[in-house]
Amino acid sequence: MDVYEALYTTRAMRRVKPDPIPEEVQKKILDAAIRAPSGGNAQTWKFGLVDDPAIRGQLGPIYRECMATLWATIYKERIELANATPDDPESVTMLKVQKSAQWLADNFETYPLLFLAFSQFDPSGGSIFPGVWNGMLAARAEGVGSAITSVLMFQMDKVLDILQVPKEEGWNFACCVTMGYPTGRWDVAPRRPVHEVSFRNTWDQPLGFEIPEPLWAPEG
Amino acid sequence: MDVYEALYTTRAMRRVKPDPIPEEVQKKILDAAIRAPSGGNAQTWKFGLVDDPAIRGQLGPIYRECMATLWATIYKERIELANATPDDPESVTMLKVQKSAQWLADNFETYPLLFLAFSQFDPSGGSIFPGVWNGMLAARAEGVGSAITSVLMFQMDKVLDILQVPKEEGWNFACCVTMGYPTGRWDVAPRRPVHEVSFRNTWDQPLGFEIPEPLWAPEG
Repeated sequence: MDVYEALYTTRAMRRVKPDPIPEEVQKKILDAAIRAPSGGNAQTWKFGLVDDPAIRGQLGPIYRECMATLWATIYKERIELANATPDDPESVTMLKVQKSAQWLADNFETYPLLFLAFSQFDPSGGSIFPGVWNGMLAARAEGVGSAITSVLMFQMDKVLDILQVPKEEGWNFACCVTMGYPTGRWDVAPRRPVHEVSFRNTWDQPLGFEIPEPLWAPEG
Repeated sequence: MDVYEALYTTRAMRRVKPDPIPEEVQKKILDAAIRAPSGGNAQTWKFGLVDDPAIRGQLGPIYRECMATLWATIYKERIELANATPDDPESVTMLKVQKSAQWLADNFETYPLLFLAFSQFDPSGGSIFPGVWNGMLAARAEGVGSAITSVLMFQMDKVLDILQVPKEEGWNFACCVTMGYPTGRWDVAPRRPVHEVSFRNTWDQPLGFEIPEPLWAPEG
């Protein structure tokens, strides 16, 4: 696969089949993840693959509690606004994201593979998320869809207990990535265009160009 | 370029030429960056391209002060240990990383392009570093080398002033990525193998496989 196809079509892919992900594909995901850089090349990271239904079964109810917390706190106002103005384009997007994220929560136990990432000494996330994203891009290249979720943060203690993480070693949970073969098709996700979210030299100074359409698009 | 070549060879590339990066390549970098996912697809991110020598000239001395702080604090013990045991393989790596990172600091003003990233409401970094890394992978595909640096954190206030960032809006500086055409060649960076940094289902349980050699290697 061409690199641009991977960069443009690796979007949050939450609706997937329960079919298992073969070991050869798991190897490609992990081996790509560890190629990413980390501060001082320290590689103070740990990646976990969860495919045991018993572990997923323990995490599922906790995941749904965390999601309920997310809707009731951080997203509360945005969802109330979206429900009050359902025809507004931003509301449409918000309600679509909410539905999709809730679907993930409701079906948590059916994802065939969870890809977890932990790091030490990485306050910005800059030494773990390039590796996570590398793994997700490799998954995409192999036809596997994925979605980053971080809501388990709300009940970190319980999650670390289930995964038997040694808390005294200072490992920070970065994210849980759900993985599986998509039920739908791959495409380019909607985004605000570059010129609206970029500047040149100093804040809010124009870039000097605009990119009205994505520079890569699927053929046909 | 094949996606795996990009995933395996996009390593910290600090030694670059001062040759400018054409606008067409800048477009590919930014347009790839915004394709990455962000929590709730909120896209609360801002990307900056700095190519004005006056701005680089203001940031350079601050960057070197920050680097001196880094060596004297977070890396102090590791560098002392490396200097005391210079033949140890880990010491060799540490001193090589230090030399390379210091070279970047000493030559900060000569990088033709800085790619900056800011985010809001993103405590983990999971909503900005996939975008940053997408931009770096697109740069790699175009032959442009890059390196993530976060040491400017040590003097954030001065940096935000120079870039005229509105502090009251709560923008968090994620990183500064240096960019330029490499003086050396691309290759696969050394990493600890997958089985040493991964587990299956619960912490420290074996994956069930090992990957003794990188799954992708350059031809010939």
